[in-house]
Amino acid sequence: MDKLFATRASRMKASEIRELLKLLDQPDIISFGGGIPDPALFPAEAFAQAFQVALGPEQQAQALQYSASEGYGPLRAWIVDRMRQIGVDCETDNVLITSGSQQALDYLGKLFLSPGDTALVGWPTYLGALAAFNAYEPRFDRLSINGNRSAAEYRAEAREGAVKFAYLSADFANPTGETVDRRGRESLLDLAEDLDCAVIEDGAYQDLRFDGEAIQPILALELARKGTIEACRTVYCGSFSKTLSPGLRVGWVVAAKPVIAQLVLMKQAADLHTATLNQMAVHQVAQACFDDHVQMLRRVYGKRRDAMLDALARYMPKDVQWTRPEGGMFVWVTLPPEKNGADLLARALETVKVAFVPGQAFFPDGSRANTIRLSFSNSDETMIDEGIRRLGQVLSS
Amino acid sequence: MDKLFATRASRMKASEIRELLKLLDQPDIISFGGGIPDPALFPAEAFAQAFQVALGPEQQAQALQYSASEGYGPLRAWIVDRMRQIGVDCETDNVLITSGSQQALDYLGKLFLSPGDTALVGWPTYLGALAAFNAYEPRFDRLSINGNRSAAEYRAEAREGAVKFAYLSADFANPTGETVDRRGRESLLDLAEDLDCAVIEDGAYQDLRFDGEAIQPILALELARKGTIEACRTVYCGSFSKTLSPGLRVGWVVAAKPVIAQLVLMKQAADLHTATLNQMAVHQVAQACFDDHVQMLRRVYGKRRDAMLDALARYMPKDVQWTRPEGGMFVWVTLPPEKNGADLLARALETVKVAFVPGQAFFPDGSRANTIRLSFSNSDETMIDEGIRRLGQVLSS
Repeated sequence: MDKLFATRASRMKASEIRELLKLLDQPDIISFGGGIPDPALFPAEAFAQAFQVALGPEQQAQALQYSASEGYGPLRAWIVDRMRQIGVDCETDNVLITSGSQQALDYLGKLFLSPGDTALVGWPTYLGALAAFNAYEPRFDRLSINGNRSAAEYRAEAREGAVKFAYLSADFANPTGETVDRRGRESLLDLAEDLDCAVIEDGAYQDLRFDGEAIQPILALELARKGTIEACRTVYCGSFSKTLSPGLRVGWVVAAKPVIAQLVLMKQAADLHTATLNQMAVHQVAQACFDDHVQMLRRVYGKRRDAMLDALARYMPKDVQWTRPEGGMFVWVTLPPEKNGADLLARALETVKVAFVPGQAFFPDGSRANTIRLSFSNSDETMIDEGIRRLGQVLSS
Repeated sequence: MDKLFATRASRMKASEIRELLKLLDQPDIISFGGGIPDPALFPAEAFAQAFQVALGPEQQAQALQYSASEGYGPLRAWIVDRMRQIGVDCETDNVLITSGSQQALDYLGKLFLSPGDTALVGWPTYLGALAAFNAYEPRFDRLSINGNRSAAEYRAEAREGAVKFAYLSADFANPTGETVDRRGRESLLDLAEDLDCAVIEDGAYQDLRFDGEAIQPILALELARKGTIEACRTVYCGSFSKTLSPGLRVGWVVAAKPVIAQLVLMKQAADLHTATLNQMAVHQVAQACFDDHVQMLRRVYGKRRDAMLDALARYMPKDVQWTRPEGGMFVWVTLPPEKNGADLLARALETVKVAFVPGQAFFPDGSRANTIRLSFSNSDETMIDEGIRRLGQVLSS
């Protein structure tokens, strides 16, 4: 059958990381691999209660039935409130509910990209964004923030296609944990104006700030420039996966109404709507305990971040460098140029049972093999200290 | 922003039907519009229990966490059993769980269609299939079953693109309610062999047979010819939306392993996975009561089908024709050639408060304006009789 496949299929290959993560599921391994929340921290009681209510006599007919592609009204309204709190003045019709923010990335690729168009992405960037966009056969170019490339240079590289958007996660990005400062955000907006392209802002980790001062989302900064979201070129993707639960698959997109209207049509054609019941439950739990729950996550993950940074300072050889994230789930480690992250993983697994993700896969061009991604979200402080100690051992030997 | 949209966006227009259905939500209208299950028949108690179990102390960590793109193992295993019962011998790796079978249609369009490729579809066919495929910019050609068009003729029409698949719902299709007989299924397989194209079999209504003898799915007939699913070109799409609940968005695809493997990659890139919790709950409810529940639905919907056919016979003018479905949710009505379904709807809404869907939208070429689709699934027998009586009145006046 594969000769019948569309050309895009050849670009969709198994993710090395996902294949790898399957192997890391053994209980005796200390894993800094998957960028996943600690399941012990899920608000499971609140969800159990919310699902009972949604499946009770008053709401069950609605909860189990087809619903609007745009999403569940009260959840969209809750998101409007939330977005306003972070500087994005918007209305319900500026919000689409998606099945996780991964789906938002797929739909945005579908909306903007024809084969040969250019998507600007970080080098490294979120692997799942590359996978989502790949289905629409773009070329990737390196987004340089506060950099020295002009719009004309990007345009020249884009050749026959157009530069359609710049994609980035501005807070505690996967995989680096780094944050783009306000000046960087403003300069990205300038570049997008010059290039006349969209900006896709992935806010997946935004709520997980442990310290430092919050910086307004790019969409909020653009809105401040232009006065109304309807004039904005930034599309914001949000997610409940890192705050409430990834297993329910509920995320959202906020953008100008014509963009949302087109995405609604795409969603209608692609999966009709996100599970009604899940939207109702997420709305109920978010309303009941979002802020308290996120406060707790910040405290717990913040301590784990501290433990990892302390352990890295204690155990890493002198020629190893790493980021110091103010939030999120990841520390990005740069080894000396002659080292290889994948080789290190093989040795670490074999000799000291420690796992992580080699960094090469996060680069569209597969460069920078001397990098690794460490996730601190799913191990306690003792395990983090022990795991980094062992990793230091392997690196020093 | 719309100048930045990909070319495909221009093909994704608001569905007239969905826009229309929004207007029909008034309580005093007798609606034969939406092809939706009767919410009073949802197994809501069973779901309430299943969600409590899945969110209980033993399973909550799994239920709320990320999970495999392929789907929840026990649910895939249940589907394997089910498929074997209808003649499709397969294994877990032949099954992908999707977020409703609408998502399967989107992914299959994505898998097979490059712009300009040909998709063969019924004339009329399921509107949602046209919408899903449209995103990949195919041309549509008319699939004629037991017809007189040769493979060479289809191929000549396909011009520069290739005929990639034939799409159909073989049992009680939306919108006609008609079933393709065994001879038709076999002849479709012959055509697919000649054309060297895939067959997408949409089994959304298959479980809802009220009477007559079950006919094996096309995939089962092909499997009988070839001995193994791995040699089959038919891809089967199943759904829990018409049997258990559409709001949970759980469906599946069964096909040869290389097709499933490619679809798993697409799903990984497009939404990571279908909600873990929903898959666990659907598995539990399916295991507990699927057969009994479907028996009940067949009884109730069967009586409603009877009521509609009786009422049509009683109240329709002589020059009106309709199908006599053996299952599903729809009766397809052909008015005299000079009548127009959309005009009739406007009159019926205004004068007698009865709603249905004009048939024209189900034709890729917008032909056959003298048709309408009536759904009997969501009205009781008294309402059906009264609604058809009123419709007869309007048609006769």
